[in-house]
Amino acid sequence: MKAKIHVTLKQGVLDPQGKAVGHALGSLGFDGVHEVRQGKYLELDLEETDFDKARDAVDAMCRQFLANTVIENYEIEIKI
Amino acid sequence: MKAKIHVTLKQGVLDPQGKAVGHALGSLGFDGVHEVRQGKYLELDLEETDFDKARDAVDAMCRQFLANTVIENYEIEIKI
Repeated sequence: MKAKIHVTLKQGVLDPQGKAVGHALGSLGFDGVHEVRQGKYLELDLEETDFDKARDAVDAMCRQFLANTVIENYEIEIKI
Repeated sequence: MKAKIHVTLKQGVLDPQGKAVGHALGSLGFDGVHEVRQGKYLELDLEETDFDKARDAVDAMCRQFLANTVIENYEIEIKI
């Protein structure tokens, strides 16, 4: 079973990495980019074959380790 | 217009960051994770209102700067 995880900064949390990318795009001549927000994207290959168990396990991984839930949101997508 | 970009390592390219995450999950007691691949996720807020022009602009950004096309793939999703 595959899990796709998006970890993004919560609204209002400053994103210096995204800002740096935005500035770099501007210096390269790409105008009209208002804002850039950068997040993490993870693909996990899981042994688990039960959908609910896989989702719960990945949710626990995100809460405990993959995301900092004080400043980050996460989204999980499980694919059979 | 919003653009969502996924930048992922090509198949066969070593992913030490993903490996490190996989090991860390193992030491935290999360067994049954075969493989972890880590990528980048970017959200761009664009001034452009034309779908095709926005897609072409973001594609150029990816080719020139956001992705290293020798070792990385990218996927673009444009939302009106």
